[in-house]
Amino acid sequence: MSIKYAERMNEAKPSFIRESLKYPADPSIISFAGGNPDADHFPVKAIKDASVHVFENDGASALQYAITEGYVPLRVSILAHMSGRGVDASIDNIAILSGSQQGLDLTGKAFIDKDDVVIIESPSYMGAINAFKYYQPKFIETAMDENGMDMDDLEAKLKANPRAKFIYTIPDFQNPTGRTMSLERRQRIVELAEKYEVIIVEDSPYYDLRFSGQKLPPIKHFDKAGKVVYLGSMSKILCPAMRVGWVLASEEIVNNYVVLKQATDLHTNELGQRIISKYLINEDLDEHIVEINEAYRVKRDIMLKILDEEFPKEIKHTCPAGGLFVWLILPDSYDAQEIFSKAMKEEKVCFVPGDTFYPYGGHKNTIRLSFASMRDEQIIEGMKRLARVMHTYTSSEAYL
Amino acid sequence: MSIKYAERMNEAKPSFIRESLKYPADPSIISFAGGNPDADHFPVKAIKDASVHVFENDGASALQYAITEGYVPLRVSILAHMSGRGVDASIDNIAILSGSQQGLDLTGKAFIDKDDVVIIESPSYMGAINAFKYYQPKFIETAMDENGMDMDDLEAKLKANPRAKFIYTIPDFQNPTGRTMSLERRQRIVELAEKYEVIIVEDSPYYDLRFSGQKLPPIKHFDKAGKVVYLGSMSKILCPAMRVGWVLASEEIVNNYVVLKQATDLHTNELGQRIISKYLINEDLDEHIVEINEAYRVKRDIMLKILDEEFPKEIKHTCPAGGLFVWLILPDSYDAQEIFSKAMKEEKVCFVPGDTFYPYGGHKNTIRLSFASMRDEQIIEGMKRLARVMHTYTSSEAYL
Repeated sequence: MSIKYAERMNEAKPSFIRESLKYPADPSIISFAGGNPDADHFPVKAIKDASVHVFENDGASALQYAITEGYVPLRVSILAHMSGRGVDASIDNIAILSGSQQGLDLTGKAFIDKDDVVIIESPSYMGAINAFKYYQPKFIETAMDENGMDMDDLEAKLKANPRAKFIYTIPDFQNPTGRTMSLERRQRIVELAEKYEVIIVEDSPYYDLRFSGQKLPPIKHFDKAGKVVYLGSMSKILCPAMRVGWVLASEEIVNNYVVLKQATDLHTNELGQRIISKYLINEDLDEHIVEINEAYRVKRDIMLKILDEEFPKEIKHTCPAGGLFVWLILPDSYDAQEIFSKAMKEEKVCFVPGDTFYPYGGHKNTIRLSFASMRDEQIIEGMKRLARVMHTYTSSEAYL
Repeated sequence: MSIKYAERMNEAKPSFIRESLKYPADPSIISFAGGNPDADHFPVKAIKDASVHVFENDGASALQYAITEGYVPLRVSILAHMSGRGVDASIDNIAILSGSQQGLDLTGKAFIDKDDVVIIESPSYMGAINAFKYYQPKFIETAMDENGMDMDDLEAKLKANPRAKFIYTIPDFQNPTGRTMSLERRQRIVELAEKYEVIIVEDSPYYDLRFSGQKLPPIKHFDKAGKVVYLGSMSKILCPAMRVGWVLASEEIVNNYVVLKQATDLHTNELGQRIISKYLINEDLDEHIVEINEAYRVKRDIMLKILDEEFPKEIKHTCPAGGLFVWLILPDSYDAQEIFSKAMKEEKVCFVPGDTFYPYGGHKNTIRLSFASMRDEQIIEGMKRLARVMHTYTSSEAYL
């Protein structure tokens, strides 16, 4: 007999990126696929010291059940960090989550009834689409340009979709495009959310990873009406393994997320929370961020230079001011899945075909590249390999 | 304007137990409320050593993103542990979860459509009821006695409810009653699950905490048809803070849970997984379990002795052979919520009123006591206080 799952399981399929992490890496493959931060820059020694400190000072209490809201000193440190980003809030406005990915799941759980509308950028982070889809919404995709989500298109979509519950956006160095929302649009989106009575979910894992241009305040900075749910993460600025993220929102919304979180995993791992808390007290996170941004800037510049100099001219790309990703737009006739197979087989170079970032597929002529986790010389080598694939592809029958 | 949440949020309220953890403990309160294991027995030194070992040997790789299925050496160690419990399985049958609580959430997500039926023991673990309820099932409660779930009643409920998706049971030292399902019923429940084409969710956090009587094989041991989803946890046998549990089931079911977990929190914290893995390799978990069981046996015996000798005779209680909990059944006219207020106010002693363990409330004459986290002398003092409350209550107008 076959097993009767819930209807939502008809949607279930493993994510391209997570699955590609599953197999022991062939060391000769150069991967621009994952969104992993650069492990060479994890402060292993400082985190180890913080962990010894936790065991020696906190003992058994660091190993016991803990409150769902999260470790208070960690929340206090993150509030100070958020204040430096232009967002002032109190302890009741923040809860620790098991990575900001959990914030996406809880957002779906808190807001989405079947057939409700979720408005996303086109393209958008596949992990968000996956988190939301199990609550069975209809996704409405809003156009983007180099300044982020198109606000006129957004307003048209809000007007046309009274069942819209929230707008999901990654305003800084968006995944997958690397684009950043302009200051003016950050103000406008808040006005639109108020006017159309929807929530804004501001997913902000890359905010601090700016390596050119001027910092912009988070959308949350402009939120007077408590309509913005801000999701933050330690994964990209410190390390991902401990799965520590946070939600910062109105007390009412945070309370609702906490109640849902109780039923989901009781609390985020307490040992990891205390280790990160101790790290934030003992070390200078901002200084660490300056260091990693310098490394990422070099990687980005290498990638963009080869894109400009060695790729076929008809391939367009974004020029991110930070984050981990560059987005390629190929001529309409290109099929990135086909290029992927060719690139893996012939050149052992890996990326994510862009159709993954659209809830209903399509856009087969797009590609996401991450410059974050490969070493400089691997980026040079990998991009040269990929350029070769693109050139053979442009001259192949598939293109003609 | 007010915020439009999903319909399921109408059910949202914080759990009694989690909320009671939120406030800084008044040290004069003696609490039999929480299900916390005894922190005095956490192997802090050994876990610290394991953690130093992880940092020194694994370095940055212990801090990077990891596969959703969980750290392979940890899964291998847990499979060996499960084999000792009479359950033989392979690496594809197990995934690490963020505590077994996450297993409950994923179970709801994988199986429950709105208005589907979930069959539970009456009473049942409130954390499971809370996890399932957000998927909007109808709960059907099955009678229990000292040998666990009543199989004739279960069959009647299965027959009457063709929309039943799964049976949720805690066969060993059940939360909240402390009762254990008999060997014969473990075999019968598997037959019933096959006959009525439903899944069994065997929630087994207390399995190893047996301190009298003979070990029984898990229900999963009898599962030939791949109908049993087994949920295990490190929280009660080692420590809860790192939120490491597991699901052991057919490859198909585990794959589905992994796909859902990807969208929920990507993976369980990798540092914690590696620390526990190292602990399991370096130390003797079984020996540790013998130690904690000896301590829990003493605590249980103290509690049962005072219940028998000093409580009003009309108060009945279970006699658990293991686990953390004793269940009190008071005369019908008693109101445990009222007794709770009186006990906290007059005697600073705390427990969980039993109505919390029924999805639709009622059963106001029941109480769950945990003997696990208080020291022996606190149990003596707390139980004497509670006995006083019970005696004043029996003679009060409320009782008459």
